[in-house]
Amino acid sequence: MLKGFNIIGDTEIAEGDDYLQAFSPTHLKNLPEKFIVATAQELENAVEKATIAFNSYKNTSAKERALFLETIAKEIDNIGDELIDRAKLETGLTEQRLTSERGRTTGQLKLFAELLREGSWVEAVIDEALPDRKPLPRSDLRKMNIAIGPVAVFGASNFPFAFSTAGGDTASALAAGNPVIVKAHPSHLGTNELMGTAIKKAAEISHMPDGVFSFIIGDGIKTGLQLVKHPGIKAVGFTGSYKAGMTIFKAATNERESPVPVFAEMSSVNPIVLLPSKLRKESDALATQLAGSISVGVGQFCTNPGLLFLIEDENYKGFTLKLIETLAAIPEAPMLNQGICSSYYMNRKLMAKQKGVAVLYMGEDESAVNEGSSALFQVNANDFIQNQELQNEVFGPASLIVKCKDERDLFQALKSLHGQLTATIMGDADDISKYAGSIEVLTGKAGRLIFNGVPTGVEVSHAMVHGGPFPATTDSHSTSVGSDAIKRFLRPFCFQDCPHDLLPDALKNENPLGIMRKINGHYTREGISV
Amino acid sequence: MLKGFNIIGDTEIAEGDDYLQAFSPTHLKNLPEKFIVATAQELENAVEKATIAFNSYKNTSAKERALFLETIAKEIDNIGDELIDRAKLETGLTEQRLTSERGRTTGQLKLFAELLREGSWVEAVIDEALPDRKPLPRSDLRKMNIAIGPVAVFGASNFPFAFSTAGGDTASALAAGNPVIVKAHPSHLGTNELMGTAIKKAAEISHMPDGVFSFIIGDGIKTGLQLVKHPGIKAVGFTGSYKAGMTIFKAATNERESPVPVFAEMSSVNPIVLLPSKLRKESDALATQLAGSISVGVGQFCTNPGLLFLIEDENYKGFTLKLIETLAAIPEAPMLNQGICSSYYMNRKLMAKQKGVAVLYMGEDESAVNEGSSALFQVNANDFIQNQELQNEVFGPASLIVKCKDERDLFQALKSLHGQLTATIMGDADDISKYAGSIEVLTGKAGRLIFNGVPTGVEVSHAMVHGGPFPATTDSHSTSVGSDAIKRFLRPFCFQDCPHDLLPDALKNENPLGIMRKINGHYTREGISV
Repeated sequence: MLKGFNIIGDTEIAEGDDYLQAFSPTHLKNLPEKFIVATAQELENAVEKATIAFNSYKNTSAKERALFLETIAKEIDNIGDELIDRAKLETGLTEQRLTSERGRTTGQLKLFAELLREGSWVEAVIDEALPDRKPLPRSDLRKMNIAIGPVAVFGASNFPFAFSTAGGDTASALAAGNPVIVKAHPSHLGTNELMGTAIKKAAEISHMPDGVFSFIIGDGIKTGLQLVKHPGIKAVGFTGSYKAGMTIFKAATNERESPVPVFAEMSSVNPIVLLPSKLRKESDALATQLAGSISVGVGQFCTNPGLLFLIEDENYKGFTLKLIETLAAIPEAPMLNQGICSSYYMNRKLMAKQKGVAVLYMGEDESAVNEGSSALFQVNANDFIQNQELQNEVFGPASLIVKCKDERDLFQALKSLHGQLTATIMGDADDISKYAGSIEVLTGKAGRLIFNGVPTGVEVSHAMVHGGPFPATTDSHSTSVGSDAIKRFLRPFCFQDCPHDLLPDALKNENPLGIMRKINGHYTREGISV
Repeated sequence: MLKGFNIIGDTEIAEGDDYLQAFSPTHLKNLPEKFIVATAQELENAVEKATIAFNSYKNTSAKERALFLETIAKEIDNIGDELIDRAKLETGLTEQRLTSERGRTTGQLKLFAELLREGSWVEAVIDEALPDRKPLPRSDLRKMNIAIGPVAVFGASNFPFAFSTAGGDTASALAAGNPVIVKAHPSHLGTNELMGTAIKKAAEISHMPDGVFSFIIGDGIKTGLQLVKHPGIKAVGFTGSYKAGMTIFKAATNERESPVPVFAEMSSVNPIVLLPSKLRKESDALATQLAGSISVGVGQFCTNPGLLFLIEDENYKGFTLKLIETLAAIPEAPMLNQGICSSYYMNRKLMAKQKGVAVLYMGEDESAVNEGSSALFQVNANDFIQNQELQNEVFGPASLIVKCKDERDLFQALKSLHGQLTATIMGDADDISKYAGSIEVLTGKAGRLIFNGVPTGVEVSHAMVHGGPFPATTDSHSTSVGSDAIKRFLRPFCFQDCPHDLLPDALKNENPLGIMRKINGHYTREGISV
């Protein structure tokens, strides 16, 4: 039974007058529940509670936080069917997809719990004192990662579990020892309430301090900006559109007395390069595979392939026809919300009008029923290079083929690319050797380079990079998926000549946590004998 | 024999009409040599060369780059006395200090060479493929740090070797595999030319690509901003004033199509907390130690202690008198340049006028002869908390005592502090246990916490953090001193299902580099058996 409140620490509160309603993208109508927009005072309280909570939460042991994260996972599972049903109602995503995304979300929480237990994420580095060094002695220096303070999280519409209230940003920020304030995504307010309530319950069961987690419901960007500009917020995690991400990034830099980092994952068109030898051998299979990747989740994936680079050879036409045929056969499906749907059709139309762009396939405009149909465009490399507009993300099941005359043409087109989350090479050994230059160009453009696979589907693991050069993110040094996502919400801290009993366990001589440390430049799990 | 040119890759060039002259802060006159300001075209050429150089330089082996850095160190030593003499002339720093700083600078280059040879700085992480996993197989994922592209470096006036042309930013950016363009510091243009020429020679000896290093001479902030805004620049390292740092930071965020990270180390007043029990036992020794730290380098250290927090007890007065006496006995000495000197006296006067501030000692204004005299101020905790102006850096040998009534007063005053590079506790075991709350507050404010030492003097080692929350730096996730400074100029990159022979050595199954890697979540130097 949804209640429409905000969660401010241990309190469910809804004292405001304004409300939002969730919208069903399949039934095309507002859902009955009213979700009360947080008042400015409620937001203030959330940050104040988070600030106070930070004082004790940062000092909880990694094991205590691991248990907390696992309890969140358990409480999410405990919601049961209600979570899937509500998310389905609010997003139009299928039960199968949502069930799998729930598993990914709880898996993510468990991965961070495992990381915390293993302990080496603090990156302990010790340089022992050299009291007899000439001309000057060296102090005892011990460094480790520490939490940075309250983190504001802006979830995404397209992954209502994995990139929202209890998603990767929240999990990694909590793992690092930071309280979290989520700005509830207006597209899935009920889902948010269910998830937020699960986290609140888990915090209570785990005896975490009041304020370790809050969510606030906001009307448009206003509440979000108020949160970002609040001096108590020390970092921001964001997943969403370029426009909203940049608004937040600029506010965090320009409209605060102390700028804070914004880890925004925004805009990526995820180029795929289909190389001739591979294409010759597997044309139909590639077309089928790509059509699936273009249309999965109705194209609403941040790793959706929006650009396909091909050499125009004797296999080009056959591949294109097969791709059109396969895309055309994919049934329209509900998009996440009407805003996304109308933007999609508008951007598609804009794309079709660009110089040199040919429409190879364009499904019916189904915006009246909030459904996305596929589209496929084509442009030559030269027109692509000349027109930066063609690199704008069209969020939905559309893709643009960039037709290249030869290797050089391809190389030049790839060189003109903006920063990307992913870049993909479809090629066999011959291709890869012949097109080595183009492959190297892609290394400079993306956070992840995929060989003979599709970019959609992001593994949550240690080696994942879900990040990349601007505009894919505002900070190419970071990843928002995988265990290293925790690094975004940590900073290095050095103790110089600190009394031994005051040192955190991670830095103590005897290495009580048994973690990997760098001592005098060498990695070891050994303790220091004194 | 100085020539006054810019170095653009392998070319010495000076086609501009404008010139700068270095100024001798001891002789109070311009030095004869003319240093020709780079033209816009010369700057353009530097970035173009750097961009082209990046293509091959990023692919040099870590061992090749290690040799390059060591060759730079050797070439710096080869300059011999001319370097020390010129720097002395341009900065007024003593021969002893400059000789020691040269050792630190070459030592720094050698530390990065050692780091490159050891190899684990790439932070290789491998998650092996799980082809039989259900419901979905896992791809082979391999991540490592890669270079980001041409880096612009803005050196500092106060460390003409260690934080300038061949300083830590240049060393770490080159180590990471990025070409560097230095904006020559106008305060030591001859020193810059000598250092830049040494790097150029080393690049030639080491067969590094043309454009791996350039320096340009600029008039005021204009040239610097032109560099920061250039699309070819991918990151900025900066050490200097808050004002210049923020100008560069904002330009990099707001005035580029693709924002780039600015690692600016700017403004820190480095609070020292002197606790009662320690003070009772060692009052005179502490006063002597602190007077030394306040006045070393005529107070022109970024870790200069500008704030002293004391409890007003029976030992307060004795300590203060001894500190005044010791400071007053320290002879005036030349400051780095007239701009810094006149700012120092102006800021001192401003400080004296603030509400509640008492002047305990103020040496003569020696700005006419460009010398800095010491000053000591006092304010109570309440007035300190009320007035943020008192936290502005007074760059020179001045310090402000914040007089606290009791532990609570101290705690509140420390809570009001801005971000700092360092914070220092002078206390014995009793103090540290009694004032645990205050010590914890400092952990949240600084990058490095020092016990019973002075903040001036920054060890170049693995565990060092020379960084901290804003305004100490624009990025508290980073350090600008020590081996981890390399991380600023690297980003993570993931290969998914990459053909094995295409993988960099760091990620190959057999671990040919023998580096520490994280494989399936576990640290190991073992290879992967296939």
